[in-house]
Amino acid sequence: MNREQLFHQIQSKRSYLCIGLDSDITKIPEHLLECEDPLYEFNKAIVAATSDLCVAYKPNLAFYESLGASGWRSLEKTMERIPGGCFTIADAKRGDIGNTSTLYARAFFQNMNFDAVTVAPYMGEDSVKPFLAFENKWVILLALTSNPGALDFQMNRQDDGELLFEAVMRKAQNWGTPDQLMFVCGATRAGQFEALRKIAPHNFFLVPGVGAQGGDLQALSRAGMNGQCGLLVNSSRQILYASSGKDFAEAARAEAMKVQMEMQALLTEKGI
Amino acid sequence: MNREQLFHQIQSKRSYLCIGLDSDITKIPEHLLECEDPLYEFNKAIVAATSDLCVAYKPNLAFYESLGASGWRSLEKTMERIPGGCFTIADAKRGDIGNTSTLYARAFFQNMNFDAVTVAPYMGEDSVKPFLAFENKWVILLALTSNPGALDFQMNRQDDGELLFEAVMRKAQNWGTPDQLMFVCGATRAGQFEALRKIAPHNFFLVPGVGAQGGDLQALSRAGMNGQCGLLVNSSRQILYASSGKDFAEAARAEAMKVQMEMQALLTEKGI
Repeated sequence: MNREQLFHQIQSKRSYLCIGLDSDITKIPEHLLECEDPLYEFNKAIVAATSDLCVAYKPNLAFYESLGASGWRSLEKTMERIPGGCFTIADAKRGDIGNTSTLYARAFFQNMNFDAVTVAPYMGEDSVKPFLAFENKWVILLALTSNPGALDFQMNRQDDGELLFEAVMRKAQNWGTPDQLMFVCGATRAGQFEALRKIAPHNFFLVPGVGAQGGDLQALSRAGMNGQCGLLVNSSRQILYASSGKDFAEAARAEAMKVQMEMQALLTEKGI
Repeated sequence: MNREQLFHQIQSKRSYLCIGLDSDITKIPEHLLECEDPLYEFNKAIVAATSDLCVAYKPNLAFYESLGASGWRSLEKTMERIPGGCFTIADAKRGDIGNTSTLYARAFFQNMNFDAVTVAPYMGEDSVKPFLAFENKWVILLALTSNPGALDFQMNRQDDGELLFEAVMRKAQNWGTPDQLMFVCGATRAGQFEALRKIAPHNFFLVPGVGAQGGDLQALSRAGMNGQCGLLVNSSRQILYASSGKDFAEAARAEAMKVQMEMQALLTEKGI
């Protein structure tokens, strides 16, 4: 999916919600455990109940890998159920030397047809570039994350005055265009969104952490939106586990709709 | 495997060789492609031919993930063929917020019984700690990698004078002991090994890059060894693809033996 198509989805759905498929075998409704492939059945129902309210789905790879080959298969099957109009993000945080990153890129972009993959910047340009070689596919590079450990290195001031995450955002813009490069920008620091937007005016930001990780949708949206919205705001647990009963999909839809309605107002406010 | 057991393996095998199972479906001998599970057959033969000459195997996850669920299954089956005396490293370069890292740790440590997993430091302490909660399991944290992109951020000087990778090595030593924490230290910079050893005197270093990535075994060993050897030096392609014929396993053994003999001399020189 290219940037225009993504923006079109945002405009027509009046939403920039990304639903994180952190689908946890220990948290999904008990009655699903009788199915042959419980994670897939759970995801299928969640997607069917929410795909008109969100513009993106973001499976978190750890939840599938922790189940081995069968988890990987659940993910492959899930990908087949996500409608073409939804942007898909492999939240994998990969990154390795060039030829290895190329293989990760193939795994996600070609084999499973994801639109985007999250990538860690520590190993630098040649670990990121292989992901940028695929047409209409996206890298979402970790910049400022929402966890406490973000303070350990990302906020380190370099001797030229920049913080490390600022250096990442600045440098990475030489590697790819805003048509293929987004940044992960943590929502627990809404006050910093204006500064983040100045560093990268045109790139989309993937914002984790609305919901269980804390965060303020209104504040971050007002500070972080650009003319094409420029935000994908993620919510996972709050939507996935809104109910642990047989009504889990309806409950997920109700939660997603709450967020979508708030987003609709914010888009209107911004004139989008 | 704990540190004493690893050291014992090094002493008895006279080797600190790690064989990287970067097993590439496009590079393995053609006759194997007729098998039901070519990657597994390749790995099985390589392991059988080399397990007395190396102390560790390091499957690179990308090569398996790029084949989807079936690749994941090839890896699971490979793990069952690696003898208990060999240290096993999931070269996965994972790292995410706490609960997600816990799931990755389970995937590698519990489900597949790896001894160690490579972890990226960018997200800080709470992304690394979950891996350190498993007894006799290891984190191998990226510090200074061997690729050109290592210059992009790892070598950034912080305003307190430290380089970023030095800050990573120093800080991470507060998170785990040398009985559970190793560092990835790139072999293309043998001249820096003395400095690396000063920052982390007791930790094992996983050294990529001997072989196809360049590197000088003697120089890095003399500069980087500590009293328990403290090094695992990786070689992948040079061993795996020593021959593309039916003699690939014998050819791999011959290559591994060359490295092992050089290591034997270096261990003796160090009095180990």
